[in-house]
Amino acid sequence: MGDWDSRQYTKFERERTQPSVDLINRIGITPHSVLDIGCGPGNSTNQLAERFPGAELLGIDSSDNMLERARKTYPDMKFQKCSVPDGLSELPGFDLIFSNACLHWVPDHKSLLPKLMDKLNPGGVLAVQMPLTQQAVFYKLLNEFISAGKWEKLNIIHNFHNLTPDKTYDVLSQVSGEVTMWETTYYHVVPSHAAVIEWYRGSGLKPYLDMLGDSEREVFLSELLELVRSNIPMQADNNVLLKMPRLFFTAAKRS
Amino acid sequence: MGDWDSRQYTKFERERTQPSVDLINRIGITPHSVLDIGCGPGNSTNQLAERFPGAELLGIDSSDNMLERARKTYPDMKFQKCSVPDGLSELPGFDLIFSNACLHWVPDHKSLLPKLMDKLNPGGVLAVQMPLTQQAVFYKLLNEFISAGKWEKLNIIHNFHNLTPDKTYDVLSQVSGEVTMWETTYYHVVPSHAAVIEWYRGSGLKPYLDMLGDSEREVFLSELLELVRSNIPMQADNNVLLKMPRLFFTAAKRS
Repeated sequence: MGDWDSRQYTKFERERTQPSVDLINRIGITPHSVLDIGCGPGNSTNQLAERFPGAELLGIDSSDNMLERARKTYPDMKFQKCSVPDGLSELPGFDLIFSNACLHWVPDHKSLLPKLMDKLNPGGVLAVQMPLTQQAVFYKLLNEFISAGKWEKLNIIHNFHNLTPDKTYDVLSQVSGEVTMWETTYYHVVPSHAAVIEWYRGSGLKPYLDMLGDSEREVFLSELLELVRSNIPMQADNNVLLKMPRLFFTAAKRS
Repeated sequence: MGDWDSRQYTKFERERTQPSVDLINRIGITPHSVLDIGCGPGNSTNQLAERFPGAELLGIDSSDNMLERARKTYPDMKFQKCSVPDGLSELPGFDLIFSNACLHWVPDHKSLLPKLMDKLNPGGVLAVQMPLTQQAVFYKLLNEFISAGKWEKLNIIHNFHNLTPDKTYDVLSQVSGEVTMWETTYYHVVPSHAAVIEWYRGSGLKPYLDMLGDSEREVFLSELLELVRSNIPMQADNNVLLKMPRLFFTAAKRS
């Protein structure tokens, strides 16, 4: 890879970890015990360890593959296979329950969020970040595109389970003390419209692409690229601003 | 004041300083010299001093009143009366030019932002936060209300000068190295719809209220309150979420 690509890669790496950094910056307590739900390859658990050096940390994930990578990269840290909410009963209470870019994969937040608050020690904090797919320009385009007819067979997929921010607030405020909530939309500077498609190819688009045969997939992607090209403007410097809205909240356990 | 009011006051104080904290957290350099444009009573200049203890700082503002308060509160720090962009020529170059919740009062960002980049030393950073009034629910309601007819005489006021985020990016990218941009919408939890009006009474509503006589002002405010009540829902805990969108960016001086 040439110089440009590696710079681009480094830039995205930093941008990919920014939401987790931003969430950690808003935790107003110094916890003795931390649970990282959906730890993935352990990056967020490691960020938490650096921020709270005295704390006992546990990273959990439902993917064996992710846990293997996490254990290999951070051999001194504790990781465990566990699904939420069912696996929570095996675990002790925590001062901080943290979850970055994970809970939107878990259904029924109306019952999930109170269960997470229940696992907090007195004075504890639940700190969460989730993508706001409902508001993201790319997902609006994708949903319109799929609903329009030709690709209707893909319409059966509902990937994400988050409530609206207002409903999330209502669920939390009923079972918490102070709730602090904000949205951040990150502007990722990408070099083309094709790069927008590439960005989502390994994440949000994957379940759709998996349902299509090879030739169908190519047609689907090129039609989607056209839609992206005609709806997201190119900037004066020939880059494209890929805007990713995310919801953040911290909720304190009522004492 | 009872216990509830003082807690509420403290909460808002923290919320009012949060954008400045969030912007400071994203400055990727350790500057030797810092200019704080629109320092007001000096709070942001003081935050910068705490974050960059070795740096030489200068806070500027166009208001004598604000500068007096700043000098009284922070007698060891340097403050100076200066307007942007005209006053910039009197000043030396800086490693960091910082401006929190101020530049939307200054017209013509197409020429302003390049002038600010020009005042940076090599490797320097411009770091800015401005409210996104175009997107704020309250301002949408207010503008519709004023355009509707009865209060049309107030329609002549254009308070804010910021470009759209995409245009701001274009202006910056032409004169900078790396540009990092994001939006954060803060959710202020306020106890009633009347508190929403109160929030804006001393800031965004002030120029309008100043144009009205006492009795007119009361009618205007009560009609506006009705509009807020019917358009911003009350939450399950009887609080109201006052959502304040803000644009942030950092732009690095091309070396």
